[in-house]
Amino acid sequence: MEYNYAKRISHLKASEIREILKVTENPEIISFAGGLPAPELFPLDEIKEVSRIVLEEEGTEALQYTTTEGYLPLRKWIAARMNNRLGTKFEPDNILLTHGSQQALDLSGKVFLDEGDVVLCESPTYLAAISAFKAYGCEFKEVPTDEDGMIPAELDRILDSTPNVKLIYVIPDFQNPTGRTWTLPRREYLVKAAMKHQVMIIEDNPYGELRFEDEPLPSLQAFDHEGCVLSLGTFSKIFCPGYRIGWVAGDQKVVEKYVLVKQGTDLQCNTLAQREIAKYLELYNIDEHIEKIRKVYKRRRNLTIKLMEDHFPEGVTFTRPKGGLFAWIELPTDINARDVLIKSLEQNVAFVPGGSFFPNGGRENTFRINFSNMPDDKIEEGLQSLAGVLREFV
Amino acid sequence: MEYNYAKRISHLKASEIREILKVTENPEIISFAGGLPAPELFPLDEIKEVSRIVLEEEGTEALQYTTTEGYLPLRKWIAARMNNRLGTKFEPDNILLTHGSQQALDLSGKVFLDEGDVVLCESPTYLAAISAFKAYGCEFKEVPTDEDGMIPAELDRILDSTPNVKLIYVIPDFQNPTGRTWTLPRREYLVKAAMKHQVMIIEDNPYGELRFEDEPLPSLQAFDHEGCVLSLGTFSKIFCPGYRIGWVAGDQKVVEKYVLVKQGTDLQCNTLAQREIAKYLELYNIDEHIEKIRKVYKRRRNLTIKLMEDHFPEGVTFTRPKGGLFAWIELPTDINARDVLIKSLEQNVAFVPGGSFFPNGGRENTFRINFSNMPDDKIEEGLQSLAGVLREFV
Repeated sequence: MEYNYAKRISHLKASEIREILKVTENPEIISFAGGLPAPELFPLDEIKEVSRIVLEEEGTEALQYTTTEGYLPLRKWIAARMNNRLGTKFEPDNILLTHGSQQALDLSGKVFLDEGDVVLCESPTYLAAISAFKAYGCEFKEVPTDEDGMIPAELDRILDSTPNVKLIYVIPDFQNPTGRTWTLPRREYLVKAAMKHQVMIIEDNPYGELRFEDEPLPSLQAFDHEGCVLSLGTFSKIFCPGYRIGWVAGDQKVVEKYVLVKQGTDLQCNTLAQREIAKYLELYNIDEHIEKIRKVYKRRRNLTIKLMEDHFPEGVTFTRPKGGLFAWIELPTDINARDVLIKSLEQNVAFVPGGSFFPNGGRENTFRINFSNMPDDKIEEGLQSLAGVLREFV
Repeated sequence: MEYNYAKRISHLKASEIREILKVTENPEIISFAGGLPAPELFPLDEIKEVSRIVLEEEGTEALQYTTTEGYLPLRKWIAARMNNRLGTKFEPDNILLTHGSQQALDLSGKVFLDEGDVVLCESPTYLAAISAFKAYGCEFKEVPTDEDGMIPAELDRILDSTPNVKLIYVIPDFQNPTGRTWTLPRREYLVKAAMKHQVMIIEDNPYGELRFEDEPLPSLQAFDHEGCVLSLGTFSKIFCPGYRIGWVAGDQKVVEKYVLVKQGTDLQCNTLAQREIAKYLELYNIDEHIEKIRKVYKRRRNLTIKLMEDHFPEGVTFTRPKGGLFAWIELPTDINARDVLIKSLEQNVAFVPGGSFFPNGGRENTFRINFSNMPDDKIEEGLQSLAGVLREFV
């Protein structure tokens, strides 16, 4: 049989990260590749307890079908938390639970993107957002981005000169892959520009709660008077990714469309997962838990930066993230990070080459490292090895 | 803000079933509407045990990210079961775990359908498959269908005269909504026609294990020598729907495409759910569990048919399914089942009007009832009430 696939999948290739993660299942590998949280910080005892209680008290409901919108107490909690932290005025009906925030990206594409529509994004941007949106036939325009966020003049120039801009996709806090955080004025400028041009913003915020220093900055929601910002969140980085529970929050009219689209896509999220997370939030203090994560990741971030400062050869630069999971490394322009990776894997050290984070290609002299997943001794050993490999190239 | 949605969602309205299910959250309602399994049959004690064991023995892995393909022991089990029951020769790599079989429908659309492509389906067909595929801009042609399956001459006529047929979507066992089962010759004919025309078949089989009488009939896979059949399965009806674990099985080349598409869609299924189901299958005998379900549903099916035979007025006809969850009722052509539903809800009895099961509309004189979810006394009370309402109309 000659398979006749849809045009949208003709460009598809395996995500480099997922393929590298397969290699990294080898336990000898020191992996800075994935975006994996530290598993030793999962609140395992508490989860055993809530799992027991949910099955004991709500067993049959927790195993049955439920509504597409998701479990009301969990949507209530999310609305309240966003209202407290971000100054929004959300009700539960402003929230749809999604199968991880990756599904919220997919649904965003499905709700908004026609073939030929344009998505503006940071340069570089999260590579799985690229795959999610590309499935709907869009084009990407990368807005030149510095350490403070998208550069306003460039944003204006692109918005003024590009028809069919449907979405602006950004990760203002501890961006994936760079670890950078947008300044307050840049946030405000972006939302004003979006309102002026009547373009939707997808604010992806999986890492915002993982801040190691300075005060939190407001979500883009804080500047939005027109319902043009949709915020994505997830329990993957502050609780456990295996549950696959994230959310999209925004204007109720838009969220209703997402609900309808999710119905046809997968009916609903896992019922048990929704109830177990809700029960955890009812019985335990997630702020204490997040504080534990912050402390460990901060130490690992410090260690990572220190090791890169001490051992990476001159000519190699890197970001110094104030939170999140990732740092971003730039090599001299004549060095291809894929070549470095091949050598590095021989030393059992993995990372993700940066090229895939540019939707229109390029910048092969970059790579991303994760500092959340490996214990301190492995970070030390791995970055020492990596520094040695880099010295062969630079 | 004037929201500018994608064209694909312009036709979208709330699924009638989901909207009715909201009404039926009122515990006084006797609902024949949803496709809900009987919650009292969920193996709750066993699930408590496997949930405890998985968290105890595999806690951190079960809460972490995993591969897109899904948990290998579960894919092994599914391949082995299909091989035993259906004579296939699947390996785990022929299987992708999906977030319920609804997601397998969505992924099928995403992998195969371009705008303007045609999907052939039974008439009527599963309404959430209609929404899943329509999101990719396809057209539907309903193939005239009798109690044995699609009518061969009609299938040939439509295949010969329709360009752009990309998929043929069928539910050969205890179809949703009619409860009908395809005969062996009709199965063979369909696959031969698909091979001749080089068209993919999506065989949706959520109910095949719930057979109350006669011998099982082979899956369409049995006649496929070219990898043109993709089979969808699910744990929702033989275990618990709240887990949202289903699968797609077929030629490895095609399944690899599904894996890539799922990566961008939602990364992976819930890790805990995959491992808990696998642990259940390892420790318990699911055949004994399915036998329990079969026995109860068979009794309810018998009761349902008997009550309809005894109390529904003349001029109302219905199917007598040999398995599954649904029966299909036809009223005289001048009666609209939506009007009947309004009256029936006044008596606290719900069902799903049949119109939405026809992708191109029509046949408003039909409706679907579910016989798996309500206990015997409620079935009796509800169908007596419904018969009374019907007598007002016929």
